[in-house]
Amino acid sequence: MEISSMQLFSRLIVILSAFAMTACVTTSDPLPSWNDGQTKTNIITFVTKITDKNSVDFVPKEERIATFDNDGTLWSEQPYYFQLAFAFHQVKLMADKHPEWKTTEPFKSVLADDMKGVMASGEKGLLQIVSATHSGMTAEEFEKSVYDWSTTATHPTTGKLFTSMVYQPMLELLQYLRANDFKTFIVSGGGVDFMRVFTEQIYGIPPEQVVGSEIDSQFKLIDGIPTILREPKLLFVDDKAGKPIGIYRHIGRRPIFAAGNSDGDLAMLEYTTISRGPDDKSLRFGLLVHHTDAVREWAYDRDSKIGKLDLGLDEAPKQGWTLVNMKNEWKVIYPTAK
Amino acid sequence: MEISSMQLFSRLIVILSAFAMTACVTTSDPLPSWNDGQTKTNIITFVTKITDKNSVDFVPKEERIATFDNDGTLWSEQPYYFQLAFAFHQVKLMADKHPEWKTTEPFKSVLADDMKGVMASGEKGLLQIVSATHSGMTAEEFEKSVYDWSTTATHPTTGKLFTSMVYQPMLELLQYLRANDFKTFIVSGGGVDFMRVFTEQIYGIPPEQVVGSEIDSQFKLIDGIPTILREPKLLFVDDKAGKPIGIYRHIGRRPIFAAGNSDGDLAMLEYTTISRGPDDKSLRFGLLVHHTDAVREWAYDRDSKIGKLDLGLDEAPKQGWTLVNMKNEWKVIYPTAK
Repeated sequence: MEISSMQLFSRLIVILSAFAMTACVTTSDPLPSWNDGQTKTNIITFVTKITDKNSVDFVPKEERIATFDNDGTLWSEQPYYFQLAFAFHQVKLMADKHPEWKTTEPFKSVLADDMKGVMASGEKGLLQIVSATHSGMTAEEFEKSVYDWSTTATHPTTGKLFTSMVYQPMLELLQYLRANDFKTFIVSGGGVDFMRVFTEQIYGIPPEQVVGSEIDSQFKLIDGIPTILREPKLLFVDDKAGKPIGIYRHIGRRPIFAAGNSDGDLAMLEYTTISRGPDDKSLRFGLLVHHTDAVREWAYDRDSKIGKLDLGLDEAPKQGWTLVNMKNEWKVIYPTAK
Repeated sequence: MEISSMQLFSRLIVILSAFAMTACVTTSDPLPSWNDGQTKTNIITFVTKITDKNSVDFVPKEERIATFDNDGTLWSEQPYYFQLAFAFHQVKLMADKHPEWKTTEPFKSVLADDMKGVMASGEKGLLQIVSATHSGMTAEEFEKSVYDWSTTATHPTTGKLFTSMVYQPMLELLQYLRANDFKTFIVSGGGVDFMRVFTEQIYGIPPEQVVGSEIDSQFKLIDGIPTILREPKLLFVDDKAGKPIGIYRHIGRRPIFAAGNSDGDLAMLEYTTISRGPDDKSLRFGLLVHHTDAVREWAYDRDSKIGKLDLGLDEAPKQGWTLVNMKNEWKVIYPTAK
């Protein structure tokens, strides 16, 4: 039987593909965007030990809980938290119905794109902006507004979609942990209902595995339709000592892996990693992302108003936490496909 | 080749086993403790439709959220909520450290096993008992006390372990839903940290899928050890209109299946099943367990102080909820092995 050159070519492709697949399997790297080094070694060693049934450090699947901060840990947070960008966006969309905002701070500054003016309104001003844009509507209306923003709004300096400014190396870390039967949670100071709209899409983390700050709400039948109304009352701030409390209330067991990037995450890392006493010899992992890359992302730590990392830099070596030097350890920052 | 009778016997066993397995597969009943009838048909029809990719009613796996009340829906609740039995048990264990309880109500009555006296202390008295036994200790201490109770304490009239008084038909329902890729949650008025100690063991529901009433807590490093302290302040009551709110805050999406047994579950069933408007044609399931079996369990509804089911009996036919007549529809109440 004569073989045409086309057939020969097809066969070659099949053979080469088989080789390529073998190569992929044998050189498979679960964290391809992480440079080889201490951090990558630490992570893989930890996961290998706690998943090894013959290891003293073995952890049953149901206890493999990993918690991640969001702002500055899974996506960027400069020049201001992205949820604030959402709030500014909403102020502009809602301005027609609030003619008084044209002459009233802090809304006047938001409408004029005057960030200095907005920041001058202080915490009180920011709370007014958040309250006006996050409450006084139904759960469905709020969800739709977040969805619309998340699929269209772009960052003021990078021009990228906010939701594409997620860290590729951290996406791989989430995926690697899940492939090893971890349940991955977000534990963030951000609003829980804000994050939930897009966490499944961008991180593979379902709404029920998101812990965040909470406002009050009410349930009512309105015209016979079951409705949840968002109220302008802050109930829970999932930051600092609030993070272990959020974990206790929502997850109900101590994580074995926690990742953050700021002093707001210290309590979560302490809760996760510090031994309960001489009998507690379990292996735990604490990770802090250190923003050191002024070219590809941002560089900030001890003196930053957003994502301040000061005590954490001192605590990391004492507690055995892994400090990730973003500039040196990450091959890429954001996913290239997006 | 000659075949010995032993070999023949072995072959027969193999053939018979193959037959038996085939029989098992073909007659497999996911709800063997439910009598054939409308309820069983309703449940199986619903699950079949929403898992059929070719059905207009198909629901993607990640949206298959099912919520279950606990007291009276998954386990018994008479003659008083089992969590109260735990509280009484703790009062007795703690009495040595509280000599004043011997002469102070409501503790005096608890110590004297005088239930009439306890009930006479009213809601205020019950709150005092719950507060004294559920706060003022660390999360670990509380967890241990619940664990000890759950593995040893027995019911005043049946003599069974409280944790064995779970409904076998409901265990099968939970399992059936999970086998069809549902995520099963508890949404109960009970204390979230109380239930979490045993829900994985007795229902296969992990701590992070339990929603319940919450008290305040604080995080502190005590002698360098990360500690959660339980505070005597009620933060959230997961009952009535609180149930949809608990679902919104904890799960972040609307269930497609909800089960309860009392008027405290009405809002959850409304939230789950009532259409959002003419465009919302999604299939939803509401189930109410009706306690009708005075011989094998208890019979109570409109006039009961515990687990009152009054409005629910009127609403069920209007809303298309499935009312489970325990006496007629359940072959057994509790698991026989326990």
